[in-house]
This record gives sequence, C-alpha cells and structure tokens, in this order.
Amino acid sequence: MNVPLFKGLPSTQIEQLASIASYKAYRKGERVFSEGEEASGFYVVIFGRVKIAKLAPDGKEQILHIIQMQEPFGEVAVFAGERFPANAEAMEDSRILFLERDAFIRLIRKEPSVAMNMLALLSRRLRQFSSLIENLSLKDVPARLSSYLLYMSQYQGDSNLLELDVSKTLLANSLGTIPETLSRILAKMTQGGLIEVDGRRIRLLNRRVLEDVAAGRRTVM
Amino acid sequence: MNVPLFKGLPSTQIEQLASIASYKAYRKGERVFSEGEEASGFYVVIFGRVKIAKLAPDGKEQILHIIQMQEPFGEVAVFAGERFPANAEAMEDSRILFLERDAFIRLIRKEPSVAMNMLALLSRRLRQFSSLIENLSLKDVPARLSSYLLYMSQYQGDSNLLELDVSKTLLANSLGTIPETLSRILAKMTQGGLIEVDGRRIRLLNRRVLEDVAAGRRTVM
Repeated sequence: MNVPLFKGLPSTQIEQLASIASYKAYRKGERVFSEGEEASGFYVVIFGRVKIAKLAPDGKEQILHIIQMQEPFGEVAVFAGERFPANAEAMEDSRILFLERDAFIRLIRKEPSVAMNMLALLSRRLRQFSSLIENLSLKDVPARLSSYLLYMSQYQGDSNLLELDVSKTLLANSLGTIPETLSRILAKMTQGGLIEVDGRRIRLLNRRVLEDVAAGRRTVM
Repeated sequence: MNVPLFKGLPSTQIEQLASIASYKAYRKGERVFSEGEEASGFYVVIFGRVKIAKLAPDGKEQILHIIQMQEPFGEVAVFAGERFPANAEAMEDSRILFLERDAFIRLIRKEPSVAMNMLALLSRRLRQFSSLIENLSLKDVPARLSSYLLYMSQYQGDSNLLELDVSKTLLANSLGTIPETLSRILAKMTQGGLIEVDGRRIRLLNRRVLEDVAAGRRTVM
C-alpha cells in the first residue's frame, strides 16, 4: 500500500491495515458513495480517478475534488464519524481500496501505535505544508496585509489606532495564508517597528514604510 | 484548551485530554527539552514563545521553528515514538501545557474516538492546506515546470521525448509545490495537448505554447 496516508508506517502496521482492507473495481461513471450516506469506511484510489461532487440547488454538478491515484478520500467523514458530505464517482475504470471504519477502530484500540503513527505522519506533513505556505506567502502576504491595514485605518477615520473587525483566522484566509504565517508576519512587522499589536487592536507606527511594503517597494522579511 | 490541534473536538474529549495534561511555567531562556532526549510527551504553548533549535557542527545555533501561542511542539516525535530531534527553549517567560505520551496512548486505547477526531482534524487541515498551496502555486508552478521541461529536453539532445531524472515528489519540491498539485498541473497540460505523460517519460507536443507558459505569457489553468 504505497499511499501517502500510510507512507513511512512500519511494515507490520501496513500488514495490519492491509488485513482489514478490501479491493474493489469500479466502472467509469459508477457511484462509490452518495451524499448523506453513513460513512462506514474510507477509500484509497489505487488505480484510476474519482470525482467528489455535490449537486447544487439549481441541479448543476459542482466538482469539489478530483482524487488521483494513491490519494485517500472519505477519510475526514470517517475519522469524524460524520455522513459523507458529497457524492463520489469513478471518472474512469478504477481500482479502489476500502478500509472499514469499525475494523479500523478495533485496530486502533488493539494497537494504538497505528493511530499514533498516522498522527505523526499527518503532523509532519502539516508542518511541511505550513512551511511551504509560508514560503509561498512571503512575497505577497505582507504587501496585502499592509494594504489592508492602511485601508482599515482610512476607513476608521484615518486614525493610527485601528481595530480588526474579523478574527485573525478569517483575516489570514482572506489574505491567502494561514493563521500561523499571519502571526509570524505581524511579529516581524512589530519587530521592525512598523506596528504594535494588542489583541485585535493594531497601532500603525510607520505609515511611510507600510505604504512602501503595500506597493511592493520594500519587504519586511 | 483553545489550540488548533484540539479545536473542534467535542467538549467531553477536551476534558479527557485536559485530565492528562499539566501546566508548567518556564523562565526566559529555560530549556524545555534537549536534542536526543526521549520524547516522553508533547507540549502546547499557552502563553509565550518557544524556540526549536539545533547546534550545527560548527557550534552555531540553527533555529528550526519558533512556536507561537496555541501551537503544539514535540508532537511529531511523540506520535512517532522517536527521540526529540532538537532543543526547545523558552524565548520569554512562558506557560506550557504538557501531555504525557503513555497517558495519551492509554486514553486512545480506552477512547479510540479521541484519536479518530484528531485524525479528522489533521486530515481536514491538510486538505485545506493543500488547496491553499494549489492556489498559491497556480501562478508560478506551470511556468517553472515548463521551463524545466524545455531545459531537460535541450539537455537530453533536443529530443521531444524526455525522461525525468528525479521522482515526482522531488520535482514537486524543487518547483515549490506538492506532488498532488504537480500531478494536477501535468494532467491539465496533458488535457491541453501540451505534453503526453507515461510514467517518468514525458513527450513535448507543443513547444511554442510551453515557451509561452514558461515566459508567463500564457497560463494553463
């Protein structure tokens, strides 16, 4: 089972997972699961491709993800104990692995190290992803954040003291980054003497430099 | 425990986690754990900041991460059952939560849903992160990939049929993205008639358009 979700697991654990897994072939266009169905297990595409889609109220199909070879799907609903939030359909003749939820829980109870190792894999991957997002964001996010701060200051009566009207998570989202990276950029700007942060209150200390950053004439990193 | 690692867990599980957690105050400069030490538990910064660093062979300190409030640290080593790979030191007076590994494993064995919910949280977050990386990558990665393909083709004797000399994971890394996104870009370029992919062999079908994409004069999405 050469899939990222299990990559790096010790071979004994791969065998334990394999022992509760079953293969199934799907024809092109065949439904794997339907929206609202109980999430009785999760899937890994071994060969082929699977479309995850919802029907919009106007009857149009809205594709959420296209699952490629080696990628799992349905796992979030299964881990969370929820129903499937969308339909899954084979886009071509596919071979798909199925891991049943109850067998997976029994395995974790007997062998908690399977869960620990999967938590380790996912945590390590999240760490890699967040440093990649940080690298990808470093060019644009400080500029967008500076524009936002200057705009908000103008909007709030041109005061140098402004109050964020959204949570940092929402602000990070709208700037195209994650809260961790936004925090680091705010910390950098604080260290650089550009701003002062106190919860949701931000004081602009150097508008001229903020304007330069917003215009891309200067970086903060 | 308002930390992303546990955010969204049902309150009964938060209580179970809290019952195995302990708080400790650290002074600025105080060591939390040392490289090579057995990872007997993981930490969450409640207040303050923690520096994760290694000593390079030349004796210089190399900072790997700065852990901000609400972020966990040491959890990868703990989940994986490894030793701590670096030192952790409080950068200012800090309050830190500690969750002991053995107690955590006992909790999972008794209550596998704690592990399932944490797997759900991490999977959901990975999914959000990878779609963010995809969005951030979409501008630059196709251009960099096209340059790389044209360069490799020239290097391999100006043939239109070239063989990747690195794995797709490594190629994705060096293009600043993740394998999933690289796969989707390769699929898009295939659908657009620019290339044909057969394992590690790639045939260039339309060099003129690839040159336009490489130069940023045209997008593939």
